This record gives sequence, C-alpha cells and structure tokens, in this order.
Amino acid sequence: MSDHGLHLQAIARVVSPYREKFGIPRQAGLVEAARGWLEMVPEFARPEAFEGLEGFERIWVIFGFHACEGRYRLRVRPPRLGGNREVGVFASRSPFRPNNLGLSLLGLEGIEQVDGRLRLRVSGMDLLHGTPVYDIKPYLPYADAHPDAAAGFAAQPPSPVLAVHFGERADAVLREQPGLRELIVQTLTLDPRPAYRKGQDQRRYGMRIEGFDVRWQVEGDRAEVEAIVPVGAEDAPGLSASD
Amino acid sequence: MSDHGLHLQAIARVVSPYREKFGIPRQAGLVEAARGWLEMVPEFARPEAFEGLEGFERIWVIFGFHACEGRYRLRVRPPRLGGNREVGVFASRSPFRPNNLGLSLLGLEGIEQVDGRLRLRVSGMDLLHGTPVYDIKPYLPYADAHPDAAAGFAAQPPSPVLAVHFGERADAVLREQPGLRELIVQTLTLDPRPAYRKGQDQRRYGMRIEGFDVRWQVEGDRAEVEAIVPVGAEDAPGLSASD
Repeated sequence: MSDHGLHLQAIARVVSPYREKFGIPRQAGLVEAARGWLEMVPEFARPEAFEGLEGFERIWVIFGFHACEGRYRLRVRPPRLGGNREVGVFASRSPFRPNNLGLSLLGLEGIEQVDGRLRLRVSGMDLLHGTPVYDIKPYLPYADAHPDAAAGFAAQPPSPVLAVHFGERADAVLREQPGLRELIVQTLTLDPRPAYRKGQDQRRYGMRIEGFDVRWQVEGDRAEVEAIVPVGAEDAPGLSASD
Repeated sequence: MSDHGLHLQAIARVVSPYREKFGIPRQAGLVEAARGWLEMVPEFARPEAFEGLEGFERIWVIFGFHACEGRYRLRVRPPRLGGNREVGVFASRSPFRPNNLGLSLLGLEGIEQVDGRLRLRVSGMDLLHGTPVYDIKPYLPYADAHPDAAAGFAAQPPSPVLAVHFGERADAVLREQPGLRELIVQTLTLDPRPAYRKGQDQRRYGMRIEGFDVRWQVEGDRAEVEAIVPVGAEDAPGLSASD
C-alpha cells in the first residue's frame, strides 16, 4: 500500500483479572500474581504453531490498547513524573499513542490444549480483559536483556508504596478465594491512584478484579480494603448502599 | 470492529544500509555498526513527541516485515537449528508470521531535526531499507531486562564464525568508504548463508550494502571479499562480467 499501512487481525484474546482500565499495573511484570490466559482464536489454536515455545520462560505480546483506540496525544504526563511533567509520547509507554500498539513481557506458565482450544497461561499481566493480541514472540535474553541501558526518567522501577490491609468483611471473602489476596495486595501496593490525588485524599476507590468489586481508601501509607463484593451482588442483604 | 482488527499507518520509514533481504542480521544488536535512521513521516516529525527520549539508550521499534507481507507459516526452520528442525512460528522471530509484525531493540544515537524533518539515528539494525515503522517505545530495563530467562533453543547468541578478509580491489574501495569496512566485517562474520549451504560450498555470494554490491566466497572459516562494486557500475572498465 502507498501509505505502508497494515491491517492486523487478532490472533488471540486476553483473559485477565483486570476488568476495567483503572488500577491496571503500569508495566508488565510488576504484579506477578496477575495471571490469566491468551486464548488463541480458532485459526491459530494449532499446537504446531507453538512447538518449542515451552522452553521459553517469557514471551513478548504485541497487543492493541483497544479501550483507547483511535486516540493519541503527542505529549503525555507519565504517572512516575507525578503527573505534572510532560514528555513526548514516543518517550513513554502511554496507551494514547499513534497506532495504539502495546508491548508487554509476560511470564509463560504453560500451554494448554482442551477440546480444540489452545491457550497460553501467563503471569505478570498489565492487560485489560478482552485485549486483542496481534503477535507472540519468544524472549531472547541475548538480544533483549540490557539491564544497564540508560533509561532517562524511568531508570528505576516504581516502588511499592502502600501497605495493604483488609477489613473484616473483605477478609471473610478472601478466605473463600485462594489467590485473590495476593493479587489484590500486589496490585494496590503500587498505588493506582492518579498522581494528582496522592496528597491528602479521603476518596473511596474501587476497581474490578476478576468477579469482584474491590473497594479501598488510602490513609497515609496504608490502603484499607473495606469491601470485596461479587459483581452484581451490591444489593445483597448485609451490604448497605454506602459500601 | 468485530474481529478486533486494527489498521496501522506507518509513523516512520527505515533508512538502512541493508538494501535486500539476503544477509540482514537475524536479530537486532548483532551488528552494532549497522547504523541508519528512522525517518518520521510528516505527521509525526514533531519534536514535542520525542521530548525526554534523548535520555534513553535503547528503543523498541515495532515494524512491518513488508517484504514478507501476507505470508506466514505455522512451522518454521530457524537458521540456528541448522535449518533442518522445525519449531512453531510463535516460538520464533521469523518474518513469515501472522500479521507480519517485527520487534527490534535498537541503539538510539541521536535525534536530528533539519528543515522540518525529524529522524532518529539508530545502531544495531536488522532492518531492510524502506521498512515501515508502526511504533517507537523507550527501553525500560526494570521491565524488559531479564538476562537469566530460560530461552529454549535460542539461549545463546549466534557466535561469529567467519574471519573476514578483503582482496586487493575490495580493499581499495574501502579506503575511500570510512565505516563500510566495519559494517561488512560485522555482517559477514555471522555467515549469512542459508544453513543448508554451510558444508563445502564454492558458490559466490553477493549482497547490497549501502550503494555497493559486496561479493564474497567462503573457504573453510574465512569469508574472502573479492569485490565491492558501486551499484550500476558492474560494467565499468576493469571489472569483468565474471565478477
């Protein structure tokens, strides 16, 4: 084509615990407990296309920021700069970018075939549920790993900042949901609030993780999880509207 | 869209010393001397879109394998397996893949603006001249660098295998082309021949690098560069047709 355009078709769809944009970790690998699947579309649910991949510990996933599609900014405000300094979009991993392509390095936990379906079990996700995947490539340390590369304003990982505590009702829910506690702790400790909120803040926050609304407040350096409510059960007996 | 397709437009075009597919290094970073440019299309030749990028040593480039577009195989024969063992396309970085997307980690050598144009000077290229670029992202060591990740059949880099020597006529050309010698040496030492040719082989090989046809033969573990001919000058006096 004259514009060297390229039409992509999804080869897989993401099954993720993150059901809405708010709260998703800002890079892959920050929340190892964020496990899910890449569910191949039928055309590529072919075991021969994955032969040899089981020997790789990590995979690159090129995907579409489908919830931001068609929108971009030339300058963005990265959260790690406190949200008050702008950089160019190509100096960032912002989803609001030309072509809306994302790149995530995920842990490969397994390759599963059941009933003609094929899916990859992955960890360290920073992906919204339903994200379309356009490519999967093996991670090659000899080409891809440069631990000492200078990285401007993003040289250090964001550090965990909040201690996460669960109230009694939240704790009761977690006792019946193995794995969910670790996922919530790893997600909330990164403090997903927008940077401009990180001063004094009495606001209640909520995010969807798996089938639950997780609700918390921040007090100082603590995130207090007040409720973990099965989605659709908000009006169930014992939960008041003020939850 | 229902198929979660995505239409990409090129944001930049690659200016590379590699003018044909044969001989291009099989990963980025293997030939550091492979320097060139990412020439932004007018819409993105905007300095504000790159602010802060100068602090990063390396950049990810997502591009299209435009010379292989529309073709893919579910199983491929990686050169490093000697060309006689197949693996799945998603266990490889083969260009013959669904969606034909490539991913290269390049050195960022500079950002240049001249007369309303904007281009990034890059090194370590494994890209064909004219390649369309769809995204540029900063390399983040804390997320992207995992030197110890298991990597199956590709755990080690391909080792340089050939000693590169120049004949007298080739040497004379190189004296007037600073930088070209290093680029040819680093490219040919990787032995770009197809794996099935790597036994006894009296064949003459040629590849286009910048404006030259580079012609060599392999004898044992030596690549003998016999001629370096400016493209279009093949019939010039002193060069016989058998060159």
